[in-house]
Amino acid sequence: VQVLTKATHGQTRQYNERLVLRTVYDLGPISRADIARRTHLTRTTVSDVIGGLLEQGLVEESGRGPSSGGKAPILLRFVADSRHVIGLDLGEETFSGALANLRGQVSHQVELPVGGRDGADALALVYRLVDQLVEQAGVIRWAVNLDWQDLPLASLLTERYRLPAHVANDSQAAALGEYAFGDRVRTPNLVAIKVGRGVGAGIVLGGQLFQGDSHGAGEIGHIFTVDDGAACRCGRFGCLETVTSAPAIVREARALAVGTPGSLLHRASLRQGDLTLDDVRVALDADDPVACAIVLRSARFLGRAIAGLIGTLDVHRVVLHGSVTAFGATWLDAVREEATRRALPLLSSRTEIDIVTISSGVVLLGASAMLMTNELGLSLTR
Amino acid sequence: VQVLTKATHGQTRQYNERLVLRTVYDLGPISRADIARRTHLTRTTVSDVIGGLLEQGLVEESGRGPSSGGKAPILLRFVADSRHVIGLDLGEETFSGALANLRGQVSHQVELPVGGRDGADALALVYRLVDQLVEQAGVIRWAVNLDWQDLPLASLLTERYRLPAHVANDSQAAALGEYAFGDRVRTPNLVAIKVGRGVGAGIVLGGQLFQGDSHGAGEIGHIFTVDDGAACRCGRFGCLETVTSAPAIVREARALAVGTPGSLLHRASLRQGDLTLDDVRVALDADDPVACAIVLRSARFLGRAIAGLIGTLDVHRVVLHGSVTAFGATWLDAVREEATRRALPLLSSRTEIDIVTISSGVVLLGASAMLMTNELGLSLTR
Repeated sequence: VQVLTKATHGQTRQYNERLVLRTVYDLGPISRADIARRTHLTRTTVSDVIGGLLEQGLVEESGRGPSSGGKAPILLRFVADSRHVIGLDLGEETFSGALANLRGQVSHQVELPVGGRDGADALALVYRLVDQLVEQAGVIRWAVNLDWQDLPLASLLTERYRLPAHVANDSQAAALGEYAFGDRVRTPNLVAIKVGRGVGAGIVLGGQLFQGDSHGAGEIGHIFTVDDGAACRCGRFGCLETVTSAPAIVREARALAVGTPGSLLHRASLRQGDLTLDDVRVALDADDPVACAIVLRSARFLGRAIAGLIGTLDVHRVVLHGSVTAFGATWLDAVREEATRRALPLLSSRTEIDIVTISSGVVLLGASAMLMTNELGLSLTR
Repeated sequence: VQVLTKATHGQTRQYNERLVLRTVYDLGPISRADIARRTHLTRTTVSDVIGGLLEQGLVEESGRGPSSGGKAPILLRFVADSRHVIGLDLGEETFSGALANLRGQVSHQVELPVGGRDGADALALVYRLVDQLVEQAGVIRWAVNLDWQDLPLASLLTERYRLPAHVANDSQAAALGEYAFGDRVRTPNLVAIKVGRGVGAGIVLGGQLFQGDSHGAGEIGHIFTVDDGAACRCGRFGCLETVTSAPAIVREARALAVGTPGSLLHRASLRQGDLTLDDVRVALDADDPVACAIVLRSARFLGRAIAGLIGTLDVHRVVLHGSVTAFGATWLDAVREEATRRALPLLSSRTEIDIVTISSGVVLLGASAMLMTNELGLSLTR
């Protein structure tokens, strides 16, 4: 057994490159001499590395600094727009995409309605979306495909556009977005759970998105939850999604509305001919007991799943997002209570469960954060 | 938001130290000039860092290398015995401890029977154990306390012996031990599950033991599993341990033996006046239907929990250890089948579930691996 990584030439060079790039990103404009002083690398190594970064366009010269006697030194600074990432979010009804730079600034966004397309037609729509974004940006360096189950799509994109593609799903990207750009002091570890049409988690460990061995980490929506449960879209039965997702809640509301003539849900159902998630929310806010029972049951199953995550990962921060979070405090309190009750007190007592601090654009911010950490090795700390 | 870690002076110095130490560990005996060439650090920085490592005793001079014209250079090599770790495994019946060096070699081992001691008497016994190990080793640098729930003990040890203590439980240490020294090609991620008196997992992610925010990661034994389940030693009901641990299986066997006069368990129970885990194993091997039912039910609950882990972490390698693994292929096949059935096929189809390759001493090997990664920053790859 060899216990050590060989510090190979290539690894050392990559480390040096990242160290120099971080230094310019953080402290630039800065001179080569100051970089060498800060990093303890030789002047020659720094000049070599900077040469490479200039060629790649990641840094640029930006005038001269104050002279300390001799010739005034050339300063270097980081070029935020030197790389762009395309984030694709392929929903059931809308395909959307956006363009972001190395500071997470979104410069362009496109949405195209799917209109029932599938197969080759859906693929053509993805290409149209990407074409429009590529047109805006000129040179794009990475595409992020937000659906890990679409691995073939990632390679199709790579082939067609010559773009290395990173793959993450929306839950994973959202977790990294909240971690990197959220409005809270950071714990090293964070789990962000999306509870909407589907249910899924994104897991950030030690400041990095953890995706598992095949991009599937966080697929908690399909954890087995209810004996003799309802059919799930994955083809199995009783998954977490079948009791906690928005469609599951609406389905339950429709079923119970029929047999509860006094309930607000029953009346809304008669009035409109159908029920939506928002009808359930309105009934809940008016203290309708049927709506309360539906929402609390669903919240408790989610709480139980979170207790499992706390037991497995011992994370002190869990954040929730997605359409179901609109149920507000009643729902959130039930989630918290069940998570606390079902986990070891020693673990759950230190865990905070909250709604995300940023919800709008968090997925695309996450895609941009992914690019920074994966490709450029820029750490995400404050 | 500042997206970057400042490459502070202290961080750079620590990185340089680890890089130089890794180089000596891996390539030594090696000269200062060769280290500088390999690492691209300046000769001055290398000499500074080596000076520090010599002072700390982590490297030593070991003669002179071949001359390339001028004076023959002094060579440096790594000192495996420069640090010792004490690993403590505080079981219910036995307190054991061992001494290991930086190559994971155990040089001394002590076992003391607990004999019903608790409170101050148990603490005195821990001190006696540590005293004996300290006597053997002289200077010890770190103690690993293998029970994360005993955090106060860790600080007592630190205070009494002036040893910085790392805390991990046996499941966590075993996972790192199997990862570092096990007999298999490594996947970056590994979950090792102990199924014995208790049930717990150790999680290795990216070659590092993942312990969560408060050392409690992997406490899957207390994940809620059975509605209206039996009381658990944690004070709650229906935890995974209450249906999959060795005591749970024995309890179930005792209960069922009474009402099944034809069964081997019934006969063994009459003959001996009681039943053990080994009686269940013997009955299972003889195809006793009652023993089969007990073991399969228990295996399926474990499989379900593993499906949850696969869904959450997407790990391709899960290994099992502990007394319950003695049930062999019948048990293991049921665990595998249920894990596969209850997880998304896309995830579970790539996951291998096996018995650990090393079981003897794996916990203490893990303690030693922990020391290497946490304190010295030595990576664990082959």
